[in-house]
Amino acid sequence: MISIGNGRNRVIIEGVEPEIDGGRFPIKRTLGEQVVVEADIFTDGHDAISCVVLYRKNSESQWSEHPMDFLANDRWRGEFAVTELGQYRYTLQAWIDHFKSWRQGLLKKLDAGQDVSVDLLTGADLIEEATQRAVGSDAKKLKERALSLRSAEEGSGRIQVATAGELSELMAKYPDKELTTMYDRELVVVVDRPKARFSAWYEIFPRSCAPGAGRHGTFQDCEARFSYIAAMGFDVLYFPPIHPIGQTHRRGKNNTSTVGPDDPGSPWAIGSADGGHKDVHPQLGNLKDFRRLVTKAKEHGLEIAIDLAFQCTPDHPYVKEHPEWFRWRPDRTVQYAENPPKKYEDIYPLNFETEKWQELWAELKEVVLFWIDQGVRIFRVDNPHTKPFNFWEWLIGGIKKDYPEVIFLAEAFTRPKVMYQLAKLGFTQSYTYFAWRNTKGELTQYFTELMQTNVREYFRPSLWPNTPDILTEYLQMGGRSAFMARLVLAATLGANYGIYGPAFELCDRRPKEFGSEEYLDSEKYEIKNWDITKPDSLRDFIARVNRIRRENPALQGDWSLCFHSIDNDQLICYSKRTEDCSNVIVVVVNLDPHHTQAGWVELGLSDLGINHEMPYQLHDLLSEARYLWHGHRNYVELNPQIVPAQIFRVRHKIRTERDFDYFM
Amino acid sequence: MISIGNGRNRVIIEGVEPEIDGGRFPIKRTLGEQVVVEADIFTDGHDAISCVVLYRKNSESQWSEHPMDFLANDRWRGEFAVTELGQYRYTLQAWIDHFKSWRQGLLKKLDAGQDVSVDLLTGADLIEEATQRAVGSDAKKLKERALSLRSAEEGSGRIQVATAGELSELMAKYPDKELTTMYDRELVVVVDRPKARFSAWYEIFPRSCAPGAGRHGTFQDCEARFSYIAAMGFDVLYFPPIHPIGQTHRRGKNNTSTVGPDDPGSPWAIGSADGGHKDVHPQLGNLKDFRRLVTKAKEHGLEIAIDLAFQCTPDHPYVKEHPEWFRWRPDRTVQYAENPPKKYEDIYPLNFETEKWQELWAELKEVVLFWIDQGVRIFRVDNPHTKPFNFWEWLIGGIKKDYPEVIFLAEAFTRPKVMYQLAKLGFTQSYTYFAWRNTKGELTQYFTELMQTNVREYFRPSLWPNTPDILTEYLQMGGRSAFMARLVLAATLGANYGIYGPAFELCDRRPKEFGSEEYLDSEKYEIKNWDITKPDSLRDFIARVNRIRRENPALQGDWSLCFHSIDNDQLICYSKRTEDCSNVIVVVVNLDPHHTQAGWVELGLSDLGINHEMPYQLHDLLSEARYLWHGHRNYVELNPQIVPAQIFRVRHKIRTERDFDYFM
Repeated sequence: MISIGNGRNRVIIEGVEPEIDGGRFPIKRTLGEQVVVEADIFTDGHDAISCVVLYRKNSESQWSEHPMDFLANDRWRGEFAVTELGQYRYTLQAWIDHFKSWRQGLLKKLDAGQDVSVDLLTGADLIEEATQRAVGSDAKKLKERALSLRSAEEGSGRIQVATAGELSELMAKYPDKELTTMYDRELVVVVDRPKARFSAWYEIFPRSCAPGAGRHGTFQDCEARFSYIAAMGFDVLYFPPIHPIGQTHRRGKNNTSTVGPDDPGSPWAIGSADGGHKDVHPQLGNLKDFRRLVTKAKEHGLEIAIDLAFQCTPDHPYVKEHPEWFRWRPDRTVQYAENPPKKYEDIYPLNFETEKWQELWAELKEVVLFWIDQGVRIFRVDNPHTKPFNFWEWLIGGIKKDYPEVIFLAEAFTRPKVMYQLAKLGFTQSYTYFAWRNTKGELTQYFTELMQTNVREYFRPSLWPNTPDILTEYLQMGGRSAFMARLVLAATLGANYGIYGPAFELCDRRPKEFGSEEYLDSEKYEIKNWDITKPDSLRDFIARVNRIRRENPALQGDWSLCFHSIDNDQLICYSKRTEDCSNVIVVVVNLDPHHTQAGWVELGLSDLGINHEMPYQLHDLLSEARYLWHGHRNYVELNPQIVPAQIFRVRHKIRTERDFDYFM
Repeated sequence: MISIGNGRNRVIIEGVEPEIDGGRFPIKRTLGEQVVVEADIFTDGHDAISCVVLYRKNSESQWSEHPMDFLANDRWRGEFAVTELGQYRYTLQAWIDHFKSWRQGLLKKLDAGQDVSVDLLTGADLIEEATQRAVGSDAKKLKERALSLRSAEEGSGRIQVATAGELSELMAKYPDKELTTMYDRELVVVVDRPKARFSAWYEIFPRSCAPGAGRHGTFQDCEARFSYIAAMGFDVLYFPPIHPIGQTHRRGKNNTSTVGPDDPGSPWAIGSADGGHKDVHPQLGNLKDFRRLVTKAKEHGLEIAIDLAFQCTPDHPYVKEHPEWFRWRPDRTVQYAENPPKKYEDIYPLNFETEKWQELWAELKEVVLFWIDQGVRIFRVDNPHTKPFNFWEWLIGGIKKDYPEVIFLAEAFTRPKVMYQLAKLGFTQSYTYFAWRNTKGELTQYFTELMQTNVREYFRPSLWPNTPDILTEYLQMGGRSAFMARLVLAATLGANYGIYGPAFELCDRRPKEFGSEEYLDSEKYEIKNWDITKPDSLRDFIARVNRIRRENPALQGDWSLCFHSIDNDQLICYSKRTEDCSNVIVVVVNLDPHHTQAGWVELGLSDLGINHEMPYQLHDLLSEARYLWHGHRNYVELNPQIVPAQIFRVRHKIRTERDFDYFM
């Protein structure tokens, strides 16, 4: 029921977008982006209304405002820019604009040749009221206008004053907001740094970075690999966990339960006599080495991301120090991880239903703060969907309050609503189903959902063609061409993407067994010695793709993604563009790794800022070939044995006879 | 941010349907209907969850609960019935079900032949905890089960007890709700009487009911018309305003400004020296006459609906008694209604922005209560979109609190969002754009939006082929066939519909001028003397259509509406059905009033409960003709010069040789 206080407020504000779950969750933007707000705003009867979007930094108490424009069908739109990291709030305000109503009526009556003498007096009253709200010279001007409207002289003078645009502008500065409707929710924007929107990740096991076989790599060995990684154009370097690895139930090569004395164990089996989540595995180095690595990485344009895997081995110090953080079985052993009938006896999950949950939460936050102290600002979070949603919302919210630049990537390969929930509650980026979306239909449907629905307001997809856990059947069967196609798809469909290397650039495609997505001789259980100098490595190809991404702003965001029709289901075509169409990229990928495929692409030219009547040039940034296109339907042909993709930049300027020296 | 209290609650409830604007507005149901509630409900990790829908009458403090079932993709569904008029509340509750998780794990381990001795002890612990929550013999039974599971003897006995369905059922009765997630909103259902969902309205000007020309009809004359109206099968009889009519600026015949002494004026020009909104126009009778009319109508199965038109003529007593309820112009006259350049000097709108708005609201509520006292329970509200939304929400909410059986029909022919807002805030039924939806594409799109999207949760459409203000071009040009087609469409697309008679059944189709939707010699400005005995009247046709509506429950609701493909754009086909398909109605209408049209209908047989492999009979309830159909594609042909529509009842039972006496 209506509270009696606002009985005279007549404006309705509803259908606000963006708004996630009735304002329960924030939307996400990056520094410098616009927040475009739309709403249905209307009142009873015929009165005109005015409305503004109100916004402020969370830390400020004063709203700024920006007028909204009428679109159609009671829909209004306004916008504001976010220029600082952290949280902004926004809401809407609308009111009956009696002056605007009056002016519209006056103009119609004048058109109809009606007498408006009483109307002019009404207008004078409205202006005089505004005088009370106005300041300085504006107040004086308004007073003069009111006097003019009251002038007894008939004639065009009064009417010119009344209908002048200048008077409207002046009145708009001092609206009568006595009966204003405020939208009843304050909505939140989380503003991240640009890397949250645009990043290229490279995952590597530091222990495999030693020069020469048989040695355990160190942080220092990693540093020697920086120029190789930076030359490929990546800007985030992500390490699996770097903490001490447990001994109890340690897994051997290829995840066997028989383990030799030299088997290093899985980095995700965290905790040993050497320490836990705030310690470094001794064979990698020490904390000082780590801090130096972070600094050195920066010099190469690389930012170190570490893994937050909140789980323990039986050897983790927490087990003794905080037995209450684990679930105990009736036989007085700790409950290990299981997904019946599978058992993971090397892993003790933390029990978030413990009575001591507050202490547990506090400690896990301490872990994050510890690594922030070491210079880390990007965390890849392992299996966040097996810890409570409330916990993450609290943790990420708390960290970002003090460190708004921190990025959390959710590694949750699980059901869609769970993945979306994690994104809503705060994760900056999220892994996706990209690895398993291989056909045109699948890719089109999935990325339309991620990038063209309101999912994009909170879920920032990160596209990975492979990970240490995922060697897809498509890569297994498609070989080098498949690796190239998937790289181009990941890097151009997604502004955020990553690969697990050097397995990727070396096209490692040997599964543990037929039908498995596990790598044979997986790096998770052994130290590898990759030959990164192999001549058939994709390193140069990757470097070129990453350079194209850096040089073309169209590829640095996801929202402009648009799929285009092409009459061959093995070929996919899509575009991305900057808002002003000054940079337009059209990508064509042959999804068939075996055969040459050809077809006719249909572009929506006006959306891409292309003139229907003029030829235009498509410049393939991968091959440097240039094609002359005309109209909306054009031919493409791709041989996967050469390059299975083209990344075209649309170039409007074509040389014609007018460029010729002798032409006039 | 999360409040610290619920840190251990791990279940998320979101995406609840039905829910209007984040719970801001109630959904609507009628007595005895089900409320089916769905939501996305999930938790982290692999634990099983259980959830219930909670519901209660608004007046009760105790929740009832009903378990929800898992559908797919983290979606759950539950339902409850509403069995009393007024408001119900509902919400959802969900929790981790440790026993269910345990049982699922146990079964998988048993399948895999694993040792479960420790698991049985864990189960015994869970059962023992439930013992504390259980009562009476259940507690005893649970204690026994726990003991059995602890039994040292190996063997199938323990396992049978542990996995028995009986134990699951027992445990489900006493769930551990310590860490329960309550959905954070209580949602409201407004429960109306069945007539809110299913009604046939007849609009008539009482003053035109006198026998013989030139006389002003009275309430008593109306009573003489009841059997005629009831015989046509209507159940709501709606009168335009019955109050005293103003003299000042009274409009003459055909809405001219020249008015003769016998011109009765428009009934919507309310208020004269004889009184205002709580008075009866003296020529109709007095209050006692009115009350008798209401009673007599009931005897004919008719319920009287009156018009709430909250506006005044300059002669209305309010103008003198409450000058503060009107807007005053600088020349000290009252602001009349205008929509520049049009002026309506006979109408003074009430000024809802008055400082005295509380007194104004109170008085208007008194008007409604006054007519409730006279026995009225249905109000057709004139132009509600020109009065504040807040006012209606307060008024309707307040009235329905004490009189939940009252029905308010919103006559707002305005922009869609305004119409929807009025429905959301409380109007029971709403006029629609039906009059202007004449082609197959228009009808399909509009009624899909109204009846197959969440609009139906709050907006109950009322379909009127004509009103005193609306004589559509379709009726003007199409003649008798168009009237029949539009009647069938209104009465079968809409469970709620109405006509303005006798203009409708007499097929009055003379516009005031070409291009106008006003009637020539409109009844709004003069007393008519209709010849209701004309042999070409549609009264019998209307009577038959209304009887079909009463006899077929499929037509008594809107939610089952389904359009079917037909390969001729002049033919439209749709069906309605009861939930169990015991009553299935298929309607075909020829939208071309001039030519015979034929085509092939395609029905989705399984949705209609029709066997693909058996013939079925289509019984045209209008003509009594019967057709033998088979499969999903069948032929129809309609001659508009005979009847432009068929209302088929699907009959499954076809006589075959098996019905023959000599057959076995």
